[in-house]
Amino acid sequence: MAELAQLIDSEVFLAYATYTTIVLLKMMLMSVTTAFFRITRKAFSNPEDTVTFGKGENAKKYLRTDPDVERVRRGHLNDLENIVPFIGIGLLYALSGPALSTALLHFRIFVGARIFHTIAYLTPLPQPSRGLSWAAGYAVTISMAYRVLTTGLYL
Amino acid sequence: MAELAQLIDSEVFLAYATYTTIVLLKMMLMSVTTAFFRITRKAFSNPEDTVTFGKGENAKKYLRTDPDVERVRRGHLNDLENIVPFIGIGLLYALSGPALSTALLHFRIFVGARIFHTIAYLTPLPQPSRGLSWAAGYAVTISMAYRVLTTGLYL
Amino acid sequence: MAELAQLIDSEVFLAYATYTTIVLLKMMLMSVTTAFFRITRKAFSNPEDTVTFGKGENAKKYLRTDPDVERVRRGHLNDLENIVPFIGIGLLYALSGPALSTALLHFRIFVGARIFHTIAYLTPLPQPSRGLSWAAGYAVTISMAYRVLTTGLYL
Repeated sequence: MAELAQLIDSEVFLAYATYTTIVLLKMMLMSVTTAFFRITRKAFSNPEDTVTFGKGENAKKYLRTDPDVERVRRGHLNDLENIVPFIGIGLLYALSGPALSTALLHFRIFVGARIFHTIAYLTPLPQPSRGLSWAAGYAVTISMAYRVLTTGLYL
Repeated sequence: MAELAQLIDSEVFLAYATYTTIVLLKMMLMSVTTAFFRITRKAFSNPEDTVTFGKGENAKKYLRTDPDVERVRRGHLNDLENIVPFIGIGLLYALSGPALSTALLHFRIFVGARIFHTIAYLTPLPQPSRGLSWAAGYAVTISMAYRVLTTGLYL
Repeated sequence: MAELAQLIDSEVFLAYATYTTIVLLKMMLMSVTTAFFRITRKAFSNPEDTVTFGKGENAKKYLRTDPDVERVRRGHLNDLENIVPFIGIGLLYALSGPALSTALLHFRIFVGARIFHTIAYLTPLPQPSRGLSWAAGYAVTISMAYRVLTTGLYL
């Protein structure tokens, strides 16, 4: 396991592991937030989820969409669309041997931008707060992709 | 390639590879299940998909949503939301040098929980079957994230 | 960092890095395409996004779905559903020591199929263009999963 130990001991890789885990935990919070709004707003998608709130016709009225639930779900999907490229490209970037300070800058901006994106989406803050935080994360991922492709392009 | 060989020969990493592949194949089954329900229920999203079933006005009636199709799609999205964090955090966890038995416990509970989640969603089983299987997978991912962050936090 | 250097220097891994980055960048283009259609079609999901186009009742009419926007979003979700398994299984496949030519064949077919899938979805091309390109990418992922599970199954 010597190689694994050295792999996980590289500071850039440790930083990648830390920020990836944080941003994935943040994304996982969206599931809990959706469940919270579904229960407090009594807005469900599945008949079997409404049984606690009543039987028959009385339960059917809880099979509905709610603006707050839909907002969290849009935020969650936006997370998936942006965090998946970050994890995939970020892993390859971390293995491409970037300077530690440059790598930290990339990871910190991305994770900060995604946390701010969630705040801007759920508050909601007036635009362009959400748009700019989305763009910051997007730009970080493009920058990492550029380094991966220029370091070891193999077509 | 000595390092790669040793990396892939670590038993924890092999277990990660096996369970990740299984759970991703399970997720891929959701695509086929959606297609199966779309065709048997004749419920499509795209006009070009309905051509086989009729022309003009006759085809338009197949552009509709169907409860079974939507149920599979919700299960698929829930898979994405939960399996993506498992793969990302699980890779870092596997590289953090956990005991083999502990790692196997994590991977087996997660994959078992997600398979049961799909069964509970598609049958559907009465709640809290689906909720509990979701929570089991969620707890496993949190537990792996805890180990990653305590083993090598680098902010 | 000797191990990392050798890891990233393996030609199969470099090819994996290149094709993964390309297909993720392609997926990221879907976000920009969605934004483009939302702005040109004036079809938004969030009240705060419509402020630029008018105030009060005048802005509310832009909170609507548009067929072109929904089409891009379906293509984006289909990307997520298929590219996530490719990245996860592909990484394990790349580490399983396949022949370089076989690996390149897998990666090239997958990325080509996904690019064609997007073109077929957005044009849209008549079926079965989109269906076949989806199936080609799916088959590549299954083939890689087969190799991962037969090389180092550890249950």
